[in-house]
Amino acid sequence: MTKEKLSIVKIGGNVIEDAQALETFLEHFSNVNGKKILVHGGGKRATHIASKLGIESNMINGRRITDADTLEVITMVYGGLVNKNIVAKLQGLEVDAIGLTGADVNSIFSEKRPVKEIDYGFVGDVKRVNHSAINKLIEADFTPVFCAITHDKKGQLFNTNADTIASELAVGLSRLYEVELYYCFEKKGVLLSVDDEDSVIDFMDTGTYEMHKHNGVFHDGMLPKLENCYYALERGVSRVFIGNPAVISDKNQKFTTLYL
Amino acid sequence: MTKEKLSIVKIGGNVIEDAQALETFLEHFSNVNGKKILVHGGGKRATHIASKLGIESNMINGRRITDADTLEVITMVYGGLVNKNIVAKLQGLEVDAIGLTGADVNSIFSEKRPVKEIDYGFVGDVKRVNHSAINKLIEADFTPVFCAITHDKKGQLFNTNADTIASELAVGLSRLYEVELYYCFEKKGVLLSVDDEDSVIDFMDTGTYEMHKHNGVFHDGMLPKLENCYYALERGVSRVFIGNPAVISDKNQKFTTLYL
Repeated sequence: MTKEKLSIVKIGGNVIEDAQALETFLEHFSNVNGKKILVHGGGKRATHIASKLGIESNMINGRRITDADTLEVITMVYGGLVNKNIVAKLQGLEVDAIGLTGADVNSIFSEKRPVKEIDYGFVGDVKRVNHSAINKLIEADFTPVFCAITHDKKGQLFNTNADTIASELAVGLSRLYEVELYYCFEKKGVLLSVDDEDSVIDFMDTGTYEMHKHNGVFHDGMLPKLENCYYALERGVSRVFIGNPAVISDKNQKFTTLYL
Repeated sequence: MTKEKLSIVKIGGNVIEDAQALETFLEHFSNVNGKKILVHGGGKRATHIASKLGIESNMINGRRITDADTLEVITMVYGGLVNKNIVAKLQGLEVDAIGLTGADVNSIFSEKRPVKEIDYGFVGDVKRVNHSAINKLIEADFTPVFCAITHDKKGQLFNTNADTIASELAVGLSRLYEVELYYCFEKKGVLLSVDDEDSVIDFMDTGTYEMHKHNGVFHDGMLPKLENCYYALERGVSRVFIGNPAVISDKNQKFTTLYL
């Protein structure tokens, strides 16, 4: 039996920061046919509000250390401010959205990241995606909108990377659907040269990926994103696209398609 | 055909402020048999965080004026911090909770309160409860947890009184269920004398209510609550209880039962 298509779209912080860019993206998203899921981060907004509240943002190697106060801000900003405004705007565009953290319907179970050299605090590594609970919502024709928060099923929320949530959702739901995963950000795709906006790599298989990686083509932010992509492809996700938000509803432009 | 029972429980700000009281309440709530919905406010927390962010809380006649900045704080605190922590704690107690605003699944549609003498800002008056969308979640064995936010289906969120949300949900869902509505707060029930914690009115019908109201028995905070209760009873809600949180799982104590 052919599986039905499910589009999972992840948008980055830069789109969320910019009201006009967000509006444009949400219009594109509303035009995506069929079943779909949106995943969003919201990094800078959280940093900004944390600083107003007198909470220091403590980053190590570009990763946020999540102490109790920081987790409160993340829960407010990702789970409340950003998520609920996106849901309201999607409802205005006739998308029957429902905003979720991993705690809602126990959708994403995680465990506190083990302390090695660094204690990341309340950061959770995803252990299980509850595809059947999420599918109840999808089957009811709702469109889940996930923020970057998970939980341990014992009452504790965790901060979890939004790219990782997108790829784990894609893997978990590929049991039930033919999943297409989109990573949308401000670039047109994966670039061969970071200084040339038009040097988009159209197609990239595992071999090409390893070669470029070996040659240091990918900058620090892109590498974990690509690792998430191949993680998903190796575990049953059909296609992964990287590009600017317009790519989700219009394929007549440059973007990067990844495959095994 | 006999309708199935649905318990709708509203908890007030004082329970939410106090971590231990909230934990105790959530345990009581987890012991409520059958289908159920939780509705919460979160007033003081929002005021506290607003003040930290340098946003003045502007109250007129005990009602918050909701400007754009205040709405942001409410969306963060009610929709994020309070709601998602309650959801996570309920999941830890084996309640399959899902946190919602009125924007999620377009569950509660409202319109901006008309400006007469006072412009309340982004405050919404409930116009329609989408009982069929909410029922899809209930039928899937999820337990909705509503915060005090609604929307206009055009992308705008609104601040809406939590007592009102509870009564409107009760009325909307009484088409499908035999609804019992609980208003839980720090008192044992409706008091005959505000200075005597044990002067709980056990039963109160409309006649007794009108008499007490005429005699000025009810203080300012209690009167709108009671109006919500009778609004609900007149529109098909089976029973309304007012008391402390223990009442929802244990009827061996004082509390107030309202009827027509």
